[in-house]
Parts: sequence; C-alpha cells; structure tokens
Amino acid sequence: MSGSEIKRKVYLQDKPRHLAKEELLQKIKLVKEIETVPTSDALGRVTALPVLANLSMPHYHASAMDGIAVRAEDTYEAHEQRPLHLKKGEDFKYVDTGNPIPNEFNAVIMVEDLQEIDEWTIEIIAPATPWQNIRPVGEDVVCGEMILPQGHKLRPVDLGALLAGGVLDLPVVRKPKVAILPTGNELVQPGEALKPGNIVEFNGKVFASFIHEWGGEPLLGDIVGDNPDEISDAIEKAAHEADMIIINAGSSAGSKDYTYHVISDLGVVYTHGIATRPGKPVILGEVKGKPIIGVPGYPVSAYLALEWFLRPLVCSYQGIQEPKRETMRVRLGRRVVSNMGAEDFVRMNIGYVNGEFIANPLTRAAGVTMSMVRADGILVVGPDSLGLEQGEEVEIELYKSAEDIKKAILFTGSHDLSIDIISTLLKKTDGSRQINSSHVGSLAGLMAIKKGEAHVTGIHLLDPETGTYNLPYVEKYLAKEEVVVIPFLKREQGWIVAKGNPLQIKTIEDIVKMGATYVNRQRGAGTRILFDSLLKMSNFTSEHVRGYEREMFSHLSVAAEIKEKQNCVGLGVYSAAKTMNLDFIPVADEDYDIVMTKSFYDSVSGKMLLKIIQSDEFIHKVEQLGGYKVVRNIEPIF
Amino acid sequence: MSGSEIKRKVYLQDKPRHLAKEELLQKIKLVKEIETVPTSDALGRVTALPVLANLSMPHYHASAMDGIAVRAEDTYEAHEQRPLHLKKGEDFKYVDTGNPIPNEFNAVIMVEDLQEIDEWTIEIIAPATPWQNIRPVGEDVVCGEMILPQGHKLRPVDLGALLAGGVLDLPVVRKPKVAILPTGNELVQPGEALKPGNIVEFNGKVFASFIHEWGGEPLLGDIVGDNPDEISDAIEKAAHEADMIIINAGSSAGSKDYTYHVISDLGVVYTHGIATRPGKPVILGEVKGKPIIGVPGYPVSAYLALEWFLRPLVCSYQGIQEPKRETMRVRLGRRVVSNMGAEDFVRMNIGYVNGEFIANPLTRAAGVTMSMVRADGILVVGPDSLGLEQGEEVEIELYKSAEDIKKAILFTGSHDLSIDIISTLLKKTDGSRQINSSHVGSLAGLMAIKKGEAHVTGIHLLDPETGTYNLPYVEKYLAKEEVVVIPFLKREQGWIVAKGNPLQIKTIEDIVKMGATYVNRQRGAGTRILFDSLLKMSNFTSEHVRGYEREMFSHLSVAAEIKEKQNCVGLGVYSAAKTMNLDFIPVADEDYDIVMTKSFYDSVSGKMLLKIIQSDEFIHKVEQLGGYKVVRNIEPIF
Repeated sequence: MSGSEIKRKVYLQDKPRHLAKEELLQKIKLVKEIETVPTSDALGRVTALPVLANLSMPHYHASAMDGIAVRAEDTYEAHEQRPLHLKKGEDFKYVDTGNPIPNEFNAVIMVEDLQEIDEWTIEIIAPATPWQNIRPVGEDVVCGEMILPQGHKLRPVDLGALLAGGVLDLPVVRKPKVAILPTGNELVQPGEALKPGNIVEFNGKVFASFIHEWGGEPLLGDIVGDNPDEISDAIEKAAHEADMIIINAGSSAGSKDYTYHVISDLGVVYTHGIATRPGKPVILGEVKGKPIIGVPGYPVSAYLALEWFLRPLVCSYQGIQEPKRETMRVRLGRRVVSNMGAEDFVRMNIGYVNGEFIANPLTRAAGVTMSMVRADGILVVGPDSLGLEQGEEVEIELYKSAEDIKKAILFTGSHDLSIDIISTLLKKTDGSRQINSSHVGSLAGLMAIKKGEAHVTGIHLLDPETGTYNLPYVEKYLAKEEVVVIPFLKREQGWIVAKGNPLQIKTIEDIVKMGATYVNRQRGAGTRILFDSLLKMSNFTSEHVRGYEREMFSHLSVAAEIKEKQNCVGLGVYSAAKTMNLDFIPVADEDYDIVMTKSFYDSVSGKMLLKIIQSDEFIHKVEQLGGYKVVRNIEPIF
Repeated sequence: MSGSEIKRKVYLQDKPRHLAKEELLQKIKLVKEIETVPTSDALGRVTALPVLANLSMPHYHASAMDGIAVRAEDTYEAHEQRPLHLKKGEDFKYVDTGNPIPNEFNAVIMVEDLQEIDEWTIEIIAPATPWQNIRPVGEDVVCGEMILPQGHKLRPVDLGALLAGGVLDLPVVRKPKVAILPTGNELVQPGEALKPGNIVEFNGKVFASFIHEWGGEPLLGDIVGDNPDEISDAIEKAAHEADMIIINAGSSAGSKDYTYHVISDLGVVYTHGIATRPGKPVILGEVKGKPIIGVPGYPVSAYLALEWFLRPLVCSYQGIQEPKRETMRVRLGRRVVSNMGAEDFVRMNIGYVNGEFIANPLTRAAGVTMSMVRADGILVVGPDSLGLEQGEEVEIELYKSAEDIKKAILFTGSHDLSIDIISTLLKKTDGSRQINSSHVGSLAGLMAIKKGEAHVTGIHLLDPETGTYNLPYVEKYLAKEEVVVIPFLKREQGWIVAKGNPLQIKTIEDIVKMGATYVNRQRGAGTRILFDSLLKMSNFTSEHVRGYEREMFSHLSVAAEIKEKQNCVGLGVYSAAKTMNLDFIPVADEDYDIVMTKSFYDSVSGKMLLKIIQSDEFIHKVEQLGGYKVVRNIEPIF
C-alpha cells in the first residue's frame, strides 16, 4: 500500500438509521413472485393470496358422540317416570363419533344415557332435542369461506384448517433469494490452514442462517477477491439471480474498500454511512433494480446492519410484519457512556439478583462474536444522549426470554476451568438452569457480589500480610453482606512458558535477566496479586518487568499470548498451559474458593450447585485436568 | 355394531393433567443419542456436549483500524506543538483493518490522525499508547475456552462464534423420532374422493408440523384400520423405529376404541383419561421402553394433548426447557362457564377496543380447527372453578403477539363476502394490519359495538314499520354511543335452492306447500328478520315452516346445507348461492351498511379502511361477485 492511497478516501455519511431505512424501502420496488406448494409442506411459509375452503368440514352431518341416531320428535315423551323404548332399525341406529347421520334421523343420544333392554330395544328416560350431538355440515369450515388472508405465516394449526377445508395446494410467496457475497483477500474457508492475516469466512454462514430464520433463501457465493473487477462481476451475477444482495465487507472508506465505487458504477448508492455505533460503514443502494447492502466486516456490526436493513426487505417481500422482540425495563448496574449524534447499540447482560433485574454492558468491540452469544439483550442509546447513569431505569430489547434470564446463575469472578464443568453438570441435572460466567478477576468478583450484580464468585486472593487466602478479603470487602464462603479447590499456579522452556525461567530474576516479555493479568486478579507479592519479595520492581503494563483477562488469554511468542512468560494455572500445549513450572499452591450470597445459597439453584461440587463425577473431572485438588466434605463458612 | 358391544366399555379416569405428565416423565427413561453435524448446518439444533474453541480468534495480533503500526515508545514525544515525523519501514508500516501487526510494533495509529508529508514520511501530533487499536490474540475466543454449554439451542450468532473458534463440526442431540400412527376406517388421504362418513386424515400432518417445530423428527405412518391386530403391528413397528409414538385416535372408551386394549397388551398404560375439557380421552403409556401417547380424534383435543404430553418429552430428550408462551391480563367480555373437577381450556379472541384489551370465548367444539386459527390465546379455568364472570380480569396464554392483537381490526356482525375483500386489500396496503371477523349476525354486531367488543360491524336490518334499513336500529340500540354509519352496499337477497330449483320455489307459500325444509338463520341476523317479515305478510306462521327452529350462522352455512339436501331452501345472498353452484331467486334488495365507533373512524386503521372501500379495485371486485352495488362517494352519517 502506498501513502498516496490515503488520498483516495471517501468520507462516510452520518445518516440517521431510520431515514436510511425508509429511503431504501421507498426507492426499491420489490417484485414478489408466487409459487404453489403442497399444504402439508407449507409450515412457516406465507400465503400469497387469500385462501378459501374447497370443501365443507364436516362435509356431511356427523355424529359428535358414540350413541344412537333418533328422530327427536319420537323422544319427546321420554321421562324418568315414563321410560321410552326404541326399536333398532325403525326408531334408532347405532352411530359412532364421526359417523354420518342417516337421512331419517335428526338427533343423537349418547351411549351413557342409554339402557339396553335386549339386542333390539333401547330404553331412554329423557327426550332428545333436534340436532343435539350432531356436527352439521360446515360446522368447522364452510366451502367458499376464507380460511386465511394473504400475508399469513403458516402455523401447524393453520395447516389443519386448510387440509380440513380441502386445500391441498397453496399459493405462497416464493422465498426471497438473498445473494451473499463475501469479499476480501484475507478470507479463507473454514477448515483451511490459517496464516497470520487470514480470517475464517464465517460471516456468510451466519448471514445465511439469519436469512433462513427470516423466511428468505440464502445464496452463499464463493469468496471474492479485493479487486474492483471481480467484485463488479460478482454483483452483476447476483443481481441477475437473486432478489437482494449482501456484500461483506469493503463497505467502509479505506483504500481497499471498493464496494462503494463498484455499486456507484453499476447502480445507485443511497446511503454510505449511518449514525450508529457499531455499524457505521453501511452502504445501501440498488443495482439493476435489486437492493444491495454493503455490510461492515466486523461480525457484530454486520449482524446489526442485516437486522436494520435486510430483515425489513425480506419481510416486506413476504408481505409480513417485522417481528418485534420483547423488551424489559431494568436498572443499570454500571454507567453507559454514549456519543452525541449517533445511536449506540450496547450488548447487555441482565441478571436477576436479590429480587431485581440489573443490566450491565458487555464489551463494545464489534469483532467479538462471543458478546452476541453472551448478550441477554441490547440497549439502544439515542443520538441525543451522552450516556446513562448507574441506577437509571432503561428499556432493553431481549435476545433471551425473561424466563431464561431469571433462571440464570450469574458467576462473576476469577475464571477457573472447573466452573465450566459445574456448568455442564448443572445443565445435565436440570436443562433449564445455566451458569452465565464473566471473567473479571477475583476482586471485581467480590465487588459484583457487593453491588448485587452476581450470585456467585470464585476468588483466589493472597493476603501478603498473613500469607492466607481469601477470607481476609471477604472480611474486608463484604463485611456488611450476608455471604457464604465455600472452601473449594487447591490449585497450582506456575510459570507458563513455551514448550521446552527455552529461556529456562524459574524465578522473577530469570524473567528480568533473560529479557522475557511477561504477560500480565489485570489489576484485581488473584494471579496479579500473587505476581505482585512475588515481585515485592524479589529485588525488582514492575519497571524491570517488560510487558508489565499490558493486562490480559484470563489464564487462557495469557497462555494464548505465550503460544504466539517464544520469548513470553506468564503466571497461571496448569490446566491453561496444558490446553495450549505449553510447559508449566510450579510456583505456588493457592486456595480458589467460592463466595455466594446467602439468598443464593438457600435457593434451589444454590443447593443444586453445592451438590454438584461435592459429587464424585465433578471431583473426578476436575482432578483429571491436573494441578487441582478438590476440597472434600465442604464446610461452608457463614 | 351390536348392542352387546356397549358392555365392553372401559371407564375413563379423571387424572389431573400435571400428575399424568409428571408420572410419564418419571417412568420413561429416554435414551438420548448424539450425532455430529457441520456447524454451518446446525441452526436450531441443540448441543449435546459443552463446546470448546479449537483456535483463538483472532489467532494473531490484528490491527483494529486502517492506519500505521508503530512502536508506542517512539511516539511519546509527539505533541500538537511538537509534531513528530516517522519514517516508513523503519518507524512504521501501513496496516489495514485485520492485518497482522509486525513483530517489532505494538500500537496502531488510525489513518484519520495521520498527516502525510511525503511518500516516506508521516507526521503525528499525539502519542500512541501500547496496544492501542490492536485486537490481541483471543480477543473474541481463546482456544480451549467454552463457547457453549450443552443443551443450547443454536442461533445464528452462536454459529458465528463456533466457526470463529474453529469448531467446524458439532456434537448435537439427534432429533427425537416421533412415529405418528393415524388409525380409523373412516380416514382417507387428502385428495381422495369423499363419501359421507369419510374424514380427511389431516391430524397427522399437523402433528408432524408441531413435532418439527419442537425439534423432533416426525415419522408419519400410513393409515391403520380399526382392527386390534393391525394397530398392534403398527405400534410394535413404531416402537422399534422411533423414540416416541403418537397414536390417533381410538383413545376413548367406545366400542371401536382399541388403543387402550392394544397398549395394555403390548406394554403398560399409566393414564387413561385426564381431567380436562377438551382433551379428556388421552392414553399415556409405554411399549418396549418407548413412550406412547393415544390422542383424541378431535383436532383441538389432539393439539392440546400433544402440547401437554409430547412436547415435554421432545424437549426433555433434547435437554432443553419447554418454551413458555407470553401471557396477558385482560378483562372478560362475556361469562365463561366451567366444570368443577376438570381444567377447562377455552380458546379466546382478544380485542383492543377503546383503549382496553377485552377477551371473549370462541366456540368450545373440539372439532372446529378454525377456532385454533382464529384464537388469540387460551384461557385455562382451573378444576376448582365453576366459571368466571363478565368483567373479571383473567390471564390468557397468547397464541399471537400482543402487538398483532393490538393492531387487529375487530369486525363483528353480519357476514358479507365483501368483508373478506376488504381484509385482502388491507393486508396488501399494510401487511401489519388485519381484520378479525366473527359472524354473529347484525343485531349481535350492534351489541358488540355497544359493549366495546368490536371496532366495526356490518348490518342489514329491515325495520318492518318504516320499510327502511339499519338507521332505525342504530338509533334504537346505539343512541348513547359515538358511532359513524357508512352507507355501503345494496345487495340482493333471494331464495337459495338446489340447481334447477326442483321444487319451483318462488314464495313462502311454495315452501310450505311443497313441504320443503327451510334452512333458517339465527335470531338477530338481518336475513332472519327479513324472512320473519316476509312470513308475517304471508298467510303462514313459523309452525308451518319445516326446519324453522334450527339456526345457521352464515349465508355460506345455509348454502352448504342446501347443497347437501335437494328439498332444502334458504334465504341468502347471491354470492353464497354462486359459491356453492346453487340457484338463486331474487326476493328483495337490501342495504348492507357499516357501523364503526367514532374513535375507530378517526384512527389510522379506520381511515385506511374507508379509503379501501371507496377504491376502484374494491368496487370492481365486489360487483364482480354479482348481486351487489357498492355505494359511491360515501357520506358518513354521524
């Protein structure tokens, strides 16, 4: 890339999202096609025309009961004091539920009200009224009656009514075809060997799933290179084959972002850049009458852009309303900062703790797919707001059901692989319960309990003064809270180093002398506190330790960094080193304990969790990881 | 059937539904199987095991911006007053978003903050901090990290995180196979010619759709005859091939209900009969370790029974929680009577009229599939209740979204085919708006407006004293209401008779003299009032008219009845006769007008409706039906 390429910049607009959407829907004329499908295969499809019944249901007068068909007029004299005898064949005929009523009869007496005298004679003690227990022709559906209007998304019960009404084939809206064009020289198909700079092409597969869910038919194309001619050819082909086009990415204004130029050449660009965060570099346009959406490369931006602009098109094509998510009013656990002039879309976690729903923002990085997996909902902060304060009540659009959110167990604290094992065993015990864990470190975990943001935390905090773990911290930070401490694990901390320990590291002195890069943990993490206390006992300060200022948020992140670079070293648990196939040099044994609120301890979930961590299956699985010893016969400390 | 068969009766239990369900889930041991599928095809499947990342994402330190990679330490001196020059190659390298950061650099400055001096020199005026604008290895997913727990139903965003984490194949729960066995000599496949007594086998197709929606794999078998040996063979085969079995019907205690006996012979029956209405004759049992559910033949009973007993099994097999429907608190518009000792499941319509949600019961007939199509929700009246009073607040489980319910236009009154045309054109104008029409007749329509249960009604009410239509009734019944009358249609009423008019009917005298059966309408229907006034002018009374006491609820139902029997005649509109291919002898022209609440008249929906009925497209479509003249240039009467 030459410096001169900087000059070719295009500046992005800041168009309000709803204006961009309205303009797109207004300018594009979608040409809807109709196809006929067998009714029994039509679940989830959308009716293209009103559907009328072809036959009546029932199509004959049918008995609604097991019993006898009679002439009501013959029975008027029947009374408890004057039982009436009816002769088979002449006065009545046996009928079962669903049988046609013979022409000469007009009522059914049910079997429970009959007294059999002999094979030919029945006694009744009450009269029948005309048409009792008879389902008249068309009771359910009358031939010619409208069963469904157009634009109706078919549910199982609709198929029943249609088939009952003799509608065997159905005019439905052909699923709108959406071409997906992944572009970028850096993209490789999943499963291919990865070189630095390569990115697995997974956005297209996710887009296809979204389109499928919304009722469209995705056409996922091959990867297109970063080359205006290739991109142009791919778009022209897509405009021919599909009803709508998604191109990903190249929608921004960088030197290799060709999408804007190519769409301008082939058709019209209505919008380039919308006033949202994330999601700004979106292109909305038209090529050969087909709408085209250039979506950003970052997955979260891309998913949101599709929901804002593609879903309305797919729904509009089908003639159905865009589905709306449920919302929930919750209190903010932390402040949310926002930008004037842009809508902020903040992924949120919601917890139900101490009888109240509390929401906290997740990472805002648009490249973090896990934030969408973990999010319970999304908070939209309007363009006129500078942010929302802690404690404010806000409305959140839910990604999960309120029920699921309410039942989730919030684990916030130091990450340990054993928490994943608890999570697995809990799901096995009761499919409806789940642990939502966020890895913020030990001290932040204690704070989360204090602020009512978590049910459970896991901590391993060395008190340098006493040399003991955890309890001094609980006493200091949670003195006023009703909590329970569960002695849980003994685990080994040690140096995580490249295979073979090339720098021969055993002490902090080795790290400093060998000029190794130390991969540090965030402030408040138990491992950070351990390192700092080791540092204090050594002859060095943090200024001697290269890399000290950078912070990682989990054992696995530390190990992943070391895996990347031979000259790195970090402090962490054995299981993290083992997962990444790295070497481990033991440094200290520590106590990793669980702290929970008293109300959680007393709850069904709390009891279930305690039972699990004392089970043989759990103990066996954790100790198999290596570097662990699980505390047996736990005695909770109140 | 011989009379002696009555003696073979089995008596049904009245087991509380929740006990029957708990017992079933407890006694059955479902053996879950796991299969591996490509992640990109796994939408909607359920993870069978916890899923860990196979690689980190990003798997290298990546630039988060377009710009230049630098050593942060080199930039600390840069300041607005002391711009710093950096040399390409030596001090920086150009990077695009996603590019790997060369080993010697540790920060990225974004393109917007750069000033190009020449091809080799860049000027900056602010320092960079280490690791700024860099996505570290594993920012999203770290290799070895748990992406998803087991028992998680996969959404599009989950597939993104899995593929990003290098998980290309996924262990999921094999979809539970559910065998569906339709039984009954009366059943014929859809499309076959129908004889009286034949019933189209559509329940099986609906069951299959439900199973599909719940995540199972339906195995829909051939129709099995009403014969214990055939049924027994079919069940044994199903127990071999499937994980669960549904048999429909024969689950009651009638003479041809063999299911109970067959299951008892092959396995165990846990429950025969539950304390619900509808849905009582359910069988729950086990054959060769597989759960078997005998569901009633009536569609509504069958659908409910599947939801009560099959869905929990399908969900439990998959290890997921049963989805719960949203509920809504509403006021009852009419009294709901209930039985002690049984749970009543009442399908309900909900309307949002005059700013309040009001619910009214639909038909309770278990054979009416359209009631499930029309229902907005279901009301469960507990076994200890004798019913609920008008005006009481109740909780309703919703079948439609609150949003859809709120937007629906409630048309309650005399049915006319033109209402279906309005409905169609409205959907075309705005996919989110829909007319929910119930055909109760003209007078009941006026009452619905008065009671706040409808937005709009259609009426054709002859005032015998003045010989005029509609306005006298509006003045009498809606004197205190703010309503608007819209002059709408002139339409022909006439005798609907069999093709060729075999009884040569032209007058009431002909009907009486020829001994024809008159197919009457319900009290309060405009057509009934017209007939009664014709009757008054004749020499006859209702006692002379055969069939007078039986009531049908729509023109189409009258026509359907006449289509069945040659010697029948009814009064109705031309379009109904035409739909059923019957003859029509004009009797009178009448005014069919629309009455709406003033607030609806002023609403967006109201304006849309008025625009539609004055459109050329609407007028053309209605007049094409025959027997109609649409009023042009409507002048509403306030």
